[in-house]
Amino acid sequence: MSVVAAQGFVAAGGAAGIKASGNADIAVVATADGLPVVAAGVFTQNLACAGPVEVSRANLAATSGHAAAVVLNSGNANCATGTDVAAARAMCAATAGAVGCAPEEVLVCSTGLIGIPLDLDVVTAGIAAVAPARSASGGHDAALAIMTTDTVPKEVVVTGDGWTIGGMAKGAAMLAPNMATMLAVLTTDALLEPEHLHGALAEAVADSFNHLVVDGCTSTNDTVLLLASGLTGAPADPVAFREGLAEACLSLAKQMAADAEGHTKVVTIEITGAANDAEAEVAARKLATSLLVKCSFYGNDPYWGRVLSDLGSCGVGLDVDAVTIAYDDVVVSKGRAPTGADATAVAARAEYTLRCDLGVFTGSAWILTNDLTHAYIDENLGTS
Amino acid sequence: MSVVAAQGFVAAGGAAGIKASGNADIAVVATADGLPVVAAGVFTQNLACAGPVEVSRANLAATSGHAAAVVLNSGNANCATGTDVAAARAMCAATAGAVGCAPEEVLVCSTGLIGIPLDLDVVTAGIAAVAPARSASGGHDAALAIMTTDTVPKEVVVTGDGWTIGGMAKGAAMLAPNMATMLAVLTTDALLEPEHLHGALAEAVADSFNHLVVDGCTSTNDTVLLLASGLTGAPADPVAFREGLAEACLSLAKQMAADAEGHTKVVTIEITGAANDAEAEVAARKLATSLLVKCSFYGNDPYWGRVLSDLGSCGVGLDVDAVTIAYDDVVVSKGRAPTGADATAVAARAEYTLRCDLGVFTGSAWILTNDLTHAYIDENLGTS
Repeated sequence: MSVVAAQGFVAAGGAAGIKASGNADIAVVATADGLPVVAAGVFTQNLACAGPVEVSRANLAATSGHAAAVVLNSGNANCATGTDVAAARAMCAATAGAVGCAPEEVLVCSTGLIGIPLDLDVVTAGIAAVAPARSASGGHDAALAIMTTDTVPKEVVVTGDGWTIGGMAKGAAMLAPNMATMLAVLTTDALLEPEHLHGALAEAVADSFNHLVVDGCTSTNDTVLLLASGLTGAPADPVAFREGLAEACLSLAKQMAADAEGHTKVVTIEITGAANDAEAEVAARKLATSLLVKCSFYGNDPYWGRVLSDLGSCGVGLDVDAVTIAYDDVVVSKGRAPTGADATAVAARAEYTLRCDLGVFTGSAWILTNDLTHAYIDENLGTS
Repeated sequence: MSVVAAQGFVAAGGAAGIKASGNADIAVVATADGLPVVAAGVFTQNLACAGPVEVSRANLAATSGHAAAVVLNSGNANCATGTDVAAARAMCAATAGAVGCAPEEVLVCSTGLIGIPLDLDVVTAGIAAVAPARSASGGHDAALAIMTTDTVPKEVVVTGDGWTIGGMAKGAAMLAPNMATMLAVLTTDALLEPEHLHGALAEAVADSFNHLVVDGCTSTNDTVLLLASGLTGAPADPVAFREGLAEACLSLAKQMAADAEGHTKVVTIEITGAANDAEAEVAARKLATSLLVKCSFYGNDPYWGRVLSDLGSCGVGLDVDAVTIAYDDVVVSKGRAPTGADATAVAARAEYTLRCDLGVFTGSAWILTNDLTHAYIDENLGTS
């Protein structure tokens, strides 16, 4: 029930037949009364963005940041088909018809394969069948219906001073958000100034999904949406709400890392001692996308030499004679020499932190990432 | 005999015992008379560069660009050990003793694992044993002795108007040169102005090794060296020599791509229509390092949607409504829509070109790369 944990929201999920497997592939989240509430969205920075991203952006602009419903499909990205914008609009219209709102009060998300036209008859019939089942207990069904290669649904509930934030997300690969590479829908009953909603969401995304790098690829469809019903009545403390929203997003991001395609490890890369935070982030992203480093994660091998090599070649300032590298608390190198400490046991853990200090100044950053495995390759050989 | 194809050079290769396998691991290339000739080097841009890179740079500076010999070892990168600079100097001294030149007239290269101290007794004894065997027929032995995960030695001979260029190289992974990620030694008997030698080498490297991206990792030890004996007597035409040198380097780079760790495909990525050449190169490198794109190469799947997604998120200008993507000559997408053409047969070829036009202006670039395979992961699990 997570995405409907807050007062005033209903949801449903079911199978329209987009997925050949017959698994659930349509989700609808809506306000209980079908009336629009304040809403905000953060979208992919990908220039080749999908039709649903264009349409959601346009609808939020047309309504000055309001929405009554979100419709999502899995199994097809509705991207780069030549008809993707029209298909996304048709999905909004079908949802509006079922919910009883205006089409521009519907936001739309798609996830799946790129470049394959969406069968509009199938998807609109699916929406017409699924949407009427929406209820205050349909959150889990909705979370199940947005899964692609996810093996588990991702849900979260955070409560604050009288308010609740509920959310769901999907994401297992094509994850190197520069925004967030995945779909997430959050709802809340907190009463917030509409103009604060987008800022709170953008900040929460920056502090959560943007720290996740599974494979360095930024999707065409990434979308994070937040709808706020305001049903608690009393204005929420904006700082506490931002913290709660960041907590909810971080929980969803960690659930994604823990369910990344084919992984055997969740590694937090922590960079300190950089010239500034931006350089620290460049270094962290370099390690998180390094094939050789990710292979050594998979091999349970604390091969710090590759880490040092990538730090030295990623284009940021470092003091090679002061660099330290540690796996959790085992410092394996200082400057350009091994300490002799053995981090083999740490490198075999399912979760650990790779800590690198660049020895320059106080810049820092962290990234959550995974190892590169045979199973990742198997999941990504192509469209079939 | 390739690295000794030009007049005035001798070489040898043999086993010192650095590699546990007992395979050859020491190579020496020297002038036949032990006297220094003009020499140039291009080195890794990695800030965490290895001792041999530091020592070779320093020796070229101390001699104003002259060298009588090059000593190379495989099986140990002599990098980040705390004693790597001293070990590299000791290798130069041992080689100088055997060749009869000054230690600073020796250039030194190492390749192998990072962070593991080199056993100096083993390596200096190996140099003392191998160097005396140097001869005008020892080129192939030298090329064999610098292999690590290479499955075949890389050699080249290019001839021009009276002159000859011979070379050898190694390289199979940690290949995303920002210079060249590998070791290569070239010799020539062309008579050249010393001040032109470095420029010719830098240009040839830029036009060859720098177009190679196997895994996006830039090594700590990359080195390309050129020694010119001038024994042909007559000054070489500088333009023709540059072209010949670029041809030799490109042959070695292509041999590396064809022997990349675990690959099943050699793919040339060709970007056109970018705002400028620099943006085209960013786009080409993004595709060459994209896990999802490289997995689809392996899967024989012309999944252009991932290509479009990476082009859209790599930070360069593109006209999404004018982008075209083709596998060899099969244009699979125009703008944000499929053409319907089937490139399955091309994607199954062992070698093909992925052509992307960004639709903006006339900038272009190309990169030679490989697919991401189970075997690549297996070769790179760690130090063992």
